[in-house]
Amino acid sequence: MKIEHIGIAVEDLTVSNQIFEKLLGKEAYKQEMVAGEKVKVSFFQVGDVKVELLQATAHDSPIARFLAQKKEGIHHLAFAVENIQEEVERLKGDGFAFLNEEAKDGADNKLIVFLHPKSTNGVLVELCQDKNAYG
Amino acid sequence: MKIEHIGIAVEDLTVSNQIFEKLLGKEAYKQEMVAGEKVKVSFFQVGDVKVELLQATAHDSPIARFLAQKKEGIHHLAFAVENIQEEVERLKGDGFAFLNEEAKDGADNKLIVFLHPKSTNGVLVELCQDKNAYG
Repeated sequence: MKIEHIGIAVEDLTVSNQIFEKLLGKEAYKQEMVAGEKVKVSFFQVGDVKVELLQATAHDSPIARFLAQKKEGIHHLAFAVENIQEEVERLKGDGFAFLNEEAKDGADNKLIVFLHPKSTNGVLVELCQDKNAYG
Repeated sequence: MKIEHIGIAVEDLTVSNQIFEKLLGKEAYKQEMVAGEKVKVSFFQVGDVKVELLQATAHDSPIARFLAQKKEGIHHLAFAVENIQEEVERLKGDGFAFLNEEAKDGADNKLIVFLHPKSTNGVLVELCQDKNAYG
């Protein structure tokens, strides 16, 4: 298990892309829509880890709900795993709760699940697996 | 610039160490007190990045104030830099604000500064440099 990315909720992706370009000294290498999550995202590569900025594209997006409650800031922490269903089973066996146990489509060609923050000290933890490695 | 660690504010380090041991499938490799920040911390190595859990050791610790306001969760995102004062100057030139511009002692033998979250989309960004590399 290694850290794949850190997700940051933002109000305006264009504005925030400029902030993070200056901070990190480089441009986002990719921008995409994730229809299932109702978000528009950009990715910055920082060493082996990515910083993902997320803007809501609808009022009922998870990011819109987060911003309404907590304002802009770090939203989730994502770990890359080789076999997502095996990790779900392992963590369920250890008593962790999930927001979704069935892997769904995420950004960047990934299958993703989220653990419930009540299990993980208030941290929204994502597990993600490359789709190409699925099977 | 690369991600050095992700700091997570917790109420009880002993309890949270157990949670993250299960989540990450490994034990914390280090625990220490950071007197200047009034915190007790533990570190987990996850690939090239560390997860740092922080418990307040006094009511006026920054972590105690964070927990009072926001509950447990991700507290800061730390980037490793080679020359911290050069990075401070670069980022000041780009209009970023700092909580402290003069590097101070952090955990894990580091010199650290914090950017003001108002500059960085609500994310508390730390820059850190190995003390041994200072000069």
